[in-house]
Amino acid sequence: MTEEIGPDLHALVFDVFGTVVDWRNGVIREVSSFAREHGLNGIDPAAFADMWRSHYVPSMLEVRSGRRPFTRLDVLHRENLEKTLATFDVSVSSVPAAALHELNLAWHRLDPWPDSVAGLTQLKARYIIAPLSNGNIRLMLDMAKRSGLPWDAILGAETAGAYKPSPEAYLRTAEILDLQPDQICMVAAHNSDLAAARRCGMRTAFITRTTEHGPTQTTDLAPEENWDVVATDMLDLAQKLHPIQDQTTAVKVK
Amino acid sequence: MTEEIGPDLHALVFDVFGTVVDWRNGVIREVSSFAREHGLNGIDPAAFADMWRSHYVPSMLEVRSGRRPFTRLDVLHRENLEKTLATFDVSVSSVPAAALHELNLAWHRLDPWPDSVAGLTQLKARYIIAPLSNGNIRLMLDMAKRSGLPWDAILGAETAGAYKPSPEAYLRTAEILDLQPDQICMVAAHNSDLAAARRCGMRTAFITRTTEHGPTQTTDLAPEENWDVVATDMLDLAQKLHPIQDQTTAVKVK
Repeated sequence: MTEEIGPDLHALVFDVFGTVVDWRNGVIREVSSFAREHGLNGIDPAAFADMWRSHYVPSMLEVRSGRRPFTRLDVLHRENLEKTLATFDVSVSSVPAAALHELNLAWHRLDPWPDSVAGLTQLKARYIIAPLSNGNIRLMLDMAKRSGLPWDAILGAETAGAYKPSPEAYLRTAEILDLQPDQICMVAAHNSDLAAARRCGMRTAFITRTTEHGPTQTTDLAPEENWDVVATDMLDLAQKLHPIQDQTTAVKVK
Repeated sequence: MTEEIGPDLHALVFDVFGTVVDWRNGVIREVSSFAREHGLNGIDPAAFADMWRSHYVPSMLEVRSGRRPFTRLDVLHRENLEKTLATFDVSVSSVPAAALHELNLAWHRLDPWPDSVAGLTQLKARYIIAPLSNGNIRLMLDMAKRSGLPWDAILGAETAGAYKPSPEAYLRTAEILDLQPDQICMVAAHNSDLAAARRCGMRTAFITRTTEHGPTQTTDLAPEENWDVVATDMLDLAQKLHPIQDQTTAVKVK
């Protein structure tokens, strides 16, 4: 696989929600505590998490279409939280403002998949690594600080002033890195994200995350194009990009 | 000192050139190699470094005044390099383009002051730490990756779209961090930077760097206002912000 990527690869940029961290179980955990604390026994935390997430793409579409100026994801998450509470018949005014604010920060406290920190640490030794997420800088920063995600810089929608999959999100990130798009590889568990990155000239790596949307996930179970690399997780990606190093390790292990 | 800063301090943002890294000796080192390699024996590397740096503030003034759209520092450094070469009677066309490009990247390869990495690592345990430098993201990223500066994120002029000491550079950084300015402390070896940060409502910490401009430095030898903290270096800053922790250490050492 490495030969296809070539020696001129300088940076890996990562989708984060679903690719690096398990957003669904994290949000379920936070919604569960919130519901318990406020006596909201009728809330199914998984259904609540899925509903909250379902507003994610439509809310960014308002910005991507130009109907709304760039607005960071924390603000969109908060608006989407209020819509979700309404669907679950919870009046926003019945919950303390500080508790709602804390619940909205659930997205800052998501756990990485078990392979993410170790895999990123290996990749960082050879490449620039940075998120290219729609999450805002403070969100990515809090998440990284809590779990030790070893980013070299926090890039993404807020830095680029554009949400994925708009081309500007990818192209401005390449410009900030002072690299040509084909010196950068987009890493994501989502075929649509990779398709958009490829249209901008970036290399592509697909990570299979088959439970991002829970045990009955039906989308993104497999690569849908001939991505440059396909990996089962972040450690597998590191191995596929560093085959010589890994052969050495294999010899040592024997 | 900590009581003046208060318990609500969440983030420290740092000037970098002079405060965290020793730009002058780094540029002198790179200019020396360049001059040796290209047979430019007439160049005094220290005079060259000082001349190159002397164009720094005027070149940003063009952007700060609005006469020029935001242009990242790598581009300004390159323009200033060509002016400096002209002053030293070196024709740009007489030097290979790749060598000029490499020399311009001297600013990406500056060494931290000896206390910087250890001090920042201590501060990172308690606060968000990020550069608030006029250096662009890729410059700060390369510098951090080379020397292990443990930033939580790379903020600064390019992220804010404005050069210090314009108020936007400080205020947009606070907005990105989702903090009030008084929850942030600006750390710098330059009185003028701290004065601008204070006017925006930030806390201030002065680090004494008396050889940034060489052995005969005449400016910024001492604090010129009652900054919230005054420290001799980054380790001293960590100690002044974490007095209880340090008392414990002191007891252990006894």
